[in-house]
Amino acid sequence: MSNGNQPQTQYYHHGRYQVKGGVLPDAVTAFRTYGNPGNPCIVFPTCYGAKLDSQLSHVGEGKALDPRKYFVVTFALFANGESSSPSNTPVPYNGPYFPAISYEDNIRAQYTVLTKHLGIKKLRMVVGFSMGGQQAYHWAVMYPDFVEKYVAICGSARTSVHNQCFLEGPKAALTASKDFEGGHYKSTPQHGIRAFGRVYSAWAYGQTWFRENQHLYGGTYSDLNTFLHEIWEGRYLESWDANDMLALLNTWQTGDVAKIHGDPDLQSALGRIKAKGLIMPCKTDLYFPPEDSEIEVKYLGDNAKLVVIDSVWGHVAGGGANPEDLKFVQGQIEQFLGEE
Amino acid sequence: MSNGNQPQTQYYHHGRYQVKGGVLPDAVTAFRTYGNPGNPCIVFPTCYGAKLDSQLSHVGEGKALDPRKYFVVTFALFANGESSSPSNTPVPYNGPYFPAISYEDNIRAQYTVLTKHLGIKKLRMVVGFSMGGQQAYHWAVMYPDFVEKYVAICGSARTSVHNQCFLEGPKAALTASKDFEGGHYKSTPQHGIRAFGRVYSAWAYGQTWFRENQHLYGGTYSDLNTFLHEIWEGRYLESWDANDMLALLNTWQTGDVAKIHGDPDLQSALGRIKAKGLIMPCKTDLYFPPEDSEIEVKYLGDNAKLVVIDSVWGHVAGGGANPEDLKFVQGQIEQFLGEE
Repeated sequence: MSNGNQPQTQYYHHGRYQVKGGVLPDAVTAFRTYGNPGNPCIVFPTCYGAKLDSQLSHVGEGKALDPRKYFVVTFALFANGESSSPSNTPVPYNGPYFPAISYEDNIRAQYTVLTKHLGIKKLRMVVGFSMGGQQAYHWAVMYPDFVEKYVAICGSARTSVHNQCFLEGPKAALTASKDFEGGHYKSTPQHGIRAFGRVYSAWAYGQTWFRENQHLYGGTYSDLNTFLHEIWEGRYLESWDANDMLALLNTWQTGDVAKIHGDPDLQSALGRIKAKGLIMPCKTDLYFPPEDSEIEVKYLGDNAKLVVIDSVWGHVAGGGANPEDLKFVQGQIEQFLGEE
Repeated sequence: MSNGNQPQTQYYHHGRYQVKGGVLPDAVTAFRTYGNPGNPCIVFPTCYGAKLDSQLSHVGEGKALDPRKYFVVTFALFANGESSSPSNTPVPYNGPYFPAISYEDNIRAQYTVLTKHLGIKKLRMVVGFSMGGQQAYHWAVMYPDFVEKYVAICGSARTSVHNQCFLEGPKAALTASKDFEGGHYKSTPQHGIRAFGRVYSAWAYGQTWFRENQHLYGGTYSDLNTFLHEIWEGRYLESWDANDMLALLNTWQTGDVAKIHGDPDLQSALGRIKAKGLIMPCKTDLYFPPEDSEIEVKYLGDNAKLVVIDSVWGHVAGGGANPEDLKFVQGQIEQFLGEE
């Protein structure tokens, strides 16, 4: 798909919209559509640190989500900077006053866009990576009769306590920083965001990846510090707002499908799912380890299959960071789409 | 050993002492001795976050390092707050001006105390956990004819790049914090140290440990946040100085036995070792993973044996945090001591 054919970002206004932490006077969901609305619909929502552009790893002609065969809809999470976010919401819910948003709030909004605005009656599939995988689980639990298939890549139905604990790290580094100012920074809080990136970095890959010096990318980076400056500080500094980062992190940290209907436990919540699931953890993921997926698949029974990504790239294996893993994941998605 | 019999901390003054990052006008090594100097000598140096008191997990009558059988010497690392540290060194090398200290600087100082002050001719064993295990490796490489046996529990001969990267996290959180003031804080930098502790916390245990809710300690802590406040913020706030924490972290981050004699690689450096080694990683340690130990033991050949601690406690399994693991480790040390 050439840049000239690149679909424009659309903005759906929900009006006054109740969310977990309060209300948004005019909530906006940003999304893009690819292909013909008459084709089977596939939803591919964003993960942490992603914009709608990031979704192009899986969307395009010849890719798993091929717009010649499917009507692909990509959704931006609330607080990603494109949908309603601390950085783009007017007073009084701007910046640090932006209300807490749950995954349920996001999926309910996406459902509205699909059904009210795009006229979709059924989802052939929802597929997501990381926070996107968590959204896939939420879709399947919230709308069991609407979703036929879902794919959770390096994601989970409930954010584990260890994952919550890991996220406390970057959050604490940013909020304690000398330039965060309780969210009232006047310009990009360089100290806080750089610290956030450094804290985050070691979690994203498996230990073996560093042992193999893959962080040098064949000489692109001369040492660990260069790698951290360019990839982990630079990336967040260039395209992220600190309050957005924290609001989105909160959605992640509090994710739990058992909360949706007040189920007594994870197994009960997952028992509501009617869709077929493809659960793809990465062997070396440090925050969504395969063990959590194994437990979920046990609860899902015949409704889901587990396929482990055998990679040293850790969490980011599922995000398309390594071409070989991306090819494997795409192959699995295509096969899963083709199954009855 | 009752408190009344508790040996006093002694302080050895090295006078003007050259270290990696410069000089200390009067370097001090803090240590304690347990038992009769005529018995075989065992050295047990401190790890990160430890004081000489911390060493009592392994030292005492009926424990692996029994003062009735051995002359046990525990050493405090430079920058732990007991030996020369940013917090106790006078102007001009106080606080943030304290010079960088290597493991070699520490071991050279410990060797002086043992040979010049205590009259020790031979070490039956050096045993250490974490940074202590790294010191054990340094002992064996630096003084191959002086050390008969060494035990590295959840430690490594060289700090891996992933471990360096993990340590960048707590370091960045503390140095970017609003009250660290470039090391010139007038009182305890609460924001910085609390953030440091939160960043550190998720690394210390295996993911399964949190999944089993072991962080609640049977109801002692009501939730993750309570656990983090009391264990990870409280512990550092009560007994640590921020500049000490950073200076000690630097020693850890730059540890590498191959630097000692300028060896071309890790294998060459480990080839200098004559002592018998017992290498005990924990199966779920996230920063000293068993894979690194396997590589080291391969390089060490017949001179070392690998015994993996089969525990969900992650790194802290080797630090005596769990009685069952402590018993296992003590048993292995006793057996190793008894071997020819």
